[in-house]
Amino acid sequence: MARNLGFLLLVIHALLLGLAAADWNILNQKKVKYGLQITLKNYCESWRMNVELHNIRDFDVVPEECVSYIGKYMTSTQYKVDSEMTIDECTVYLSTSCGLKKDGTDAWIFDIDDTLLSTVPYYKKNGFGGKKLNSTCLEEWMQQGKAPALEHSLKLFNQLKGLGVQIILVSSRRECLRSATIDNLVDVGYHGWTSLILRGPDDENKDIQKYKADVRKQLISSGYRIWGILGDQWSSVEGLPTAKRTFKLPNPLYYVA
Amino acid sequence: MARNLGFLLLVIHALLLGLAAADWNILNQKKVKYGLQITLKNYCESWRMNVELHNIRDFDVVPEECVSYIGKYMTSTQYKVDSEMTIDECTVYLSTSCGLKKDGTDAWIFDIDDTLLSTVPYYKKNGFGGKKLNSTCLEEWMQQGKAPALEHSLKLFNQLKGLGVQIILVSSRRECLRSATIDNLVDVGYHGWTSLILRGPDDENKDIQKYKADVRKQLISSGYRIWGILGDQWSSVEGLPTAKRTFKLPNPLYYVA
Repeated sequence: MARNLGFLLLVIHALLLGLAAADWNILNQKKVKYGLQITLKNYCESWRMNVELHNIRDFDVVPEECVSYIGKYMTSTQYKVDSEMTIDECTVYLSTSCGLKKDGTDAWIFDIDDTLLSTVPYYKKNGFGGKKLNSTCLEEWMQQGKAPALEHSLKLFNQLKGLGVQIILVSSRRECLRSATIDNLVDVGYHGWTSLILRGPDDENKDIQKYKADVRKQLISSGYRIWGILGDQWSSVEGLPTAKRTFKLPNPLYYVA
Repeated sequence: MARNLGFLLLVIHALLLGLAAADWNILNQKKVKYGLQITLKNYCESWRMNVELHNIRDFDVVPEECVSYIGKYMTSTQYKVDSEMTIDECTVYLSTSCGLKKDGTDAWIFDIDDTLLSTVPYYKKNGFGGKKLNSTCLEEWMQQGKAPALEHSLKLFNQLKGLGVQIILVSSRRECLRSATIDNLVDVGYHGWTSLILRGPDDENKDIQKYKADVRKQLISSGYRIWGILGDQWSSVEGLPTAKRTFKLPNPLYYVA
């Protein structure tokens, strides 16, 4: 109702005053889809929701008509609030779960890209998920070590350190990026992790979910109890063995299988 | 940008014309949370997203300040489009997956509530998730057999029948609701399922995820290959054994563990 009223008022306003943002026009073109009159914004919001629900999988690119919408979301307050609330839930979980042994075997796993460090600056310059990934370009950008921190993830990282939890970084980045990755992490405030696990040559033929599950298997067999995983991809949190709890940050920019 | 412009235009318009929906005012009160100036709408949208990401679990009620937002969402075009897109993904999956044997062993599992039948009319009259569930009231409503179909789910149901896939309904409804459930389903157009599995007295002490996983175990051991599950709760699609693919419809109204 309120949104419809808003829509109507905006249309009147635009007509009266000739004030209309170009993007807004595109996003609110009415289309008939599913027998409903919907806007492109409705459509792209559903696309994003179904990515996060893990109903839409294995996409190579963001649909062309939603690139502008996704670019806006990834640079919006909403994306920040969504991510902060994910972190809040990690904190709630930590504060209510008993049994941390504090003997060096409690562990927490983090992804790196779009979990600790943001690749949004890269995607901003490279079509916001609308172009097929060029791994060489992305790795060149990673080599520069200029990815900013996700500030709320840094808070969680520090909270975990304070609790005496061992922090294990498990990333799909390749070994050749190790030193750039360490420099980047330290530059933006991350330090004191226990282990940084990157993909070696043997892992390059595995899909990422299998690679990450294999890492967890090794961690568990070496005595760690994994209290949580924070990642931005379902492939980081699905597969067995898993952690006591998993948390997924929003990320509709790309899909890692 | 476009949203900010819209916000600004709406404020001007409301001031000029004295036209403002009461709810809209509430939803756009600015608050400082996470160090960001956010609206209640930002907050409630994040709450809903984090429910769907399965970061927020085991909630008894929708947060009081988001009840109005969630009520609007559940009766909006956006909810319909979100759900339709989930069904579209089921259809894409079915059209691209090879290997249906068509020998009576291909199966698909559906939830009932908020998957085939909508409980939104009940929640509309009962505080839209803002009040703790009264099971007696809800079961009385279910006994009336007046729940409407989710139209897009009915299409998928019929498509599966056309493909010769056996349809298994697995619901957390109790056995005492069997006849009302069958009448309701048939009334709104569902017929031709293979099996309707409801919770017997033995299942009432299990959590729903375990109950549903146990049902799948039995189905698989009796020879079914489960191609997909469609449900609105994570407890319907998580746990082992699972299906080849799972699909989750949006539902921020309540949580079933």
